[in-house]
Amino acid sequence: MCRGDDANCPEFELHYRAFKEDLNAERRGFLKSGFVAAGGLATLGAAGGASLVTPALAEASAARSPTERKSHYLPANADTVHWGYFSKSLKPKVEVDSGDIVTIEALTHHACDDRERMVEGDEGAESVFLWTKDKKGVDRRGAGTTDPKVYKKGSGEGQGVHVMTGPVYVRGAEPGDILEVRILDCAPRPCANPKFKGKSFGSNAAAWWGYHYNDMIGGAKREVVTIYEVDATGAKSWAQAAYNFKWVPQTDPFGVVHPTIDYPGVPVDHTKTERNFDVLKGVRVPIRPHFGTLGLAPAEAEFVDTIPPSYTGGNIDNWRIGKGATMYYPVAVDGALLSVGDPHASQGDSELCGTAIECSLTGVFQLILHKKADLGGTPLEGLDYPMLETKDEWLVHGFSFANYLKELGPEAQSAIYGKSSVDLAMRDAFRKMRQFLMATQKLTEDEAVSLMSIGVDFGVTQVVDGNWGVHAVVKKDIFAGRA
Amino acid sequence: MCRGDDANCPEFELHYRAFKEDLNAERRGFLKSGFVAAGGLATLGAAGGASLVTPALAEASAARSPTERKSHYLPANADTVHWGYFSKSLKPKVEVDSGDIVTIEALTHHACDDRERMVEGDEGAESVFLWTKDKKGVDRRGAGTTDPKVYKKGSGEGQGVHVMTGPVYVRGAEPGDILEVRILDCAPRPCANPKFKGKSFGSNAAAWWGYHYNDMIGGAKREVVTIYEVDATGAKSWAQAAYNFKWVPQTDPFGVVHPTIDYPGVPVDHTKTERNFDVLKGVRVPIRPHFGTLGLAPAEAEFVDTIPPSYTGGNIDNWRIGKGATMYYPVAVDGALLSVGDPHASQGDSELCGTAIECSLTGVFQLILHKKADLGGTPLEGLDYPMLETKDEWLVHGFSFANYLKELGPEAQSAIYGKSSVDLAMRDAFRKMRQFLMATQKLTEDEAVSLMSIGVDFGVTQVVDGNWGVHAVVKKDIFAGRA
Repeated sequence: MCRGDDANCPEFELHYRAFKEDLNAERRGFLKSGFVAAGGLATLGAAGGASLVTPALAEASAARSPTERKSHYLPANADTVHWGYFSKSLKPKVEVDSGDIVTIEALTHHACDDRERMVEGDEGAESVFLWTKDKKGVDRRGAGTTDPKVYKKGSGEGQGVHVMTGPVYVRGAEPGDILEVRILDCAPRPCANPKFKGKSFGSNAAAWWGYHYNDMIGGAKREVVTIYEVDATGAKSWAQAAYNFKWVPQTDPFGVVHPTIDYPGVPVDHTKTERNFDVLKGVRVPIRPHFGTLGLAPAEAEFVDTIPPSYTGGNIDNWRIGKGATMYYPVAVDGALLSVGDPHASQGDSELCGTAIECSLTGVFQLILHKKADLGGTPLEGLDYPMLETKDEWLVHGFSFANYLKELGPEAQSAIYGKSSVDLAMRDAFRKMRQFLMATQKLTEDEAVSLMSIGVDFGVTQVVDGNWGVHAVVKKDIFAGRA
Repeated sequence: MCRGDDANCPEFELHYRAFKEDLNAERRGFLKSGFVAAGGLATLGAAGGASLVTPALAEASAARSPTERKSHYLPANADTVHWGYFSKSLKPKVEVDSGDIVTIEALTHHACDDRERMVEGDEGAESVFLWTKDKKGVDRRGAGTTDPKVYKKGSGEGQGVHVMTGPVYVRGAEPGDILEVRILDCAPRPCANPKFKGKSFGSNAAAWWGYHYNDMIGGAKREVVTIYEVDATGAKSWAQAAYNFKWVPQTDPFGVVHPTIDYPGVPVDHTKTERNFDVLKGVRVPIRPHFGTLGLAPAEAEFVDTIPPSYTGGNIDNWRIGKGATMYYPVAVDGALLSVGDPHASQGDSELCGTAIECSLTGVFQLILHKKADLGGTPLEGLDYPMLETKDEWLVHGFSFANYLKELGPEAQSAIYGKSSVDLAMRDAFRKMRQFLMATQKLTEDEAVSLMSIGVDFGVTQVVDGNWGVHAVVKKDIFAGRA
């Protein structure tokens, strides 16, 4: 019997219902309450306010979908995740129709920074992070080589780090279409260890790929991991630090030494670290639960590192991609192949030290397919980048390279890390916002440029993901008075 | 008799009261109502919430000031403004004690884009923008040469463009002190032309120094000015476009041709332009009245171009520097020498096209001097950059070069324009925010770096002022739970 995680199993529907019954009651209860708080299915809709989906397009897309809307549940376990890469060749873990709702569990790839708080007792997490001298729950981690004779750090070489749940196959999706992804809900995954009942935890690693790393006071070089506690009952709107520790070389169960955080999922042996519990006392970090990495499989390569974001989304690391938000992605391969990972409890614009509060979350998504044939004359026509819509705002995401896989040639996946630049990302964000305003609001270039200067805000999304990001935000209200 | 604009006049107090009486009743009424709405003097205080000024410092600073708080009024006219430069040698236009309130009129240097709407009938503006074949109301415009045998565009060469009201001399201020500038109120200057009663106007120039200029569709090159209408009664919270026009070569009254917007205050002859009134129809731009250029005279040079912001503030172009905000500036010269200009009705983060909605405003400021001897152990100790505090947030301002005048040597004022970079500004903002968190919250470097990644937002302030800007924002609430 499948565990509700094999969409091809003839009894998948039955099995996933059984899986859901087995979920820890508290976790289930929490998710349900969050969902009810969101207004439940009755009021599900786009991000709210003016939407990029015109009524005519909504109707056309609905007409192509089954009338019955189904719900799916995709747990996170060793069988339902792929680690560190997107791939157009992955076998789907669930197949859905346009309009369906999918609840997806996402695990943080930093859980092994504190297995006691983020793995132990959690069946799904234990299956994913299993690593003994003989076996890894998920062997390949990254888009790098899987040849044991060649790799140095481990299978996949950690070229890409995020535990991605999926992919979800959307029936009928083809290149040229747009996939609308509505995030209906999003909540922290409660700790399964009875010692920490009612809490969730996340890890923030100030790592070698962080923006600060080569600019530390006195030329120091150290990686510091801070474990944060997040309230899983929803009563507190902030996270607080539990403790921090300096990374010291860790030997993984296969015997490879990791002098820095150079491979994901290495279990941290805390008998070797010094934990400092006197950290950020009284500091309350507002929570902003969201998915750092959410996107579709690109067409350009077989295995694509999850770290640099690109035209099909991925690791955008914008904290606004949380509950209530809608993403629009250009579909690059048949079935769209949506994957979800890199869950964050909170992050600031820039994700400066290299990570957010990396904290497992479960999200409820509605996926709506818009066929290319229906897009003509609508705001989504020609959209070739990942677009974010919230209740009040539209955001475009600029990157150092809009589609680095195409622009940087065969070595793109390594070359991108040498070309990180906020300046280039700003340029891309400017061009995308201009295009967006001209295409969706029918402004002239002069109108768009003037409006960008007085009514659009540009922010630094992240400076740590190889392909750095600048986003541009425009308020929907600005256009509310238009005929 | 002075017009209430010569602080050295023996009867200055009397004269400025007379000047105020003469002010257009409507304008006075509007300002007063805005001031009352702000809660009036009774509730004047710092930006609110936790302040960078500790109670002990507030007490120490108050003890050094006269017990009676005086009010001053500094109108904008040809005698009270300097145009395009800061200078440590300028004669003060008003002298104040710490704690005093100064109402200061600021005129937009773009008023001559539409003299009918922004100059005519306005005595102060007419005196400043006066330009006949024989005379300019204010001859020098910019830090460049004033030698008619040498200059090509005009006196001062437009190396610096903002009409600056001031300077205000703060008694007792010396290098090493900090000047706290509270913006108690800020309101648009109503149009003095009866044809446009109840309205204010501003100009947005998409100019050659804009970020978009070398990246226009099809490689086009044009400057476009959009005139915006702002409601001066306070009833509407948005601005709307009135018309736009493409800049065509303009001949100034001295006979110099300006093929581009290369010298401030050139009267636009609209018999030569084509005005397009079909522009941004129905688009409502939320207003964010603020001062683009507000700061102190730097010590490094005699005449300093107003365009690049630096350690004593100046042209920071952050729209948050409006009503309710408090700025802290390091004092570089005796008397501090505060000047105010570049008023904006609204601007987005980035000020992309080169300008905001450039719209004359009047501000009410309270100036509080904090002496170096009292700063030890307080959050303001060692502050060597312009710091912004709002009710809910603290913001540091990073620039491509923190103090370009010092860092770039004798040619700094021209060299800076070749070194504009968001990447460099991001680096400076990171360093300043780290320093700020460590100094004011007594965090370790590791704590500060972690917090910056999860609770601090970095945004693009401007990419058009030579010394480009990135700001970092931290919410005060984060620290509300600390002992």
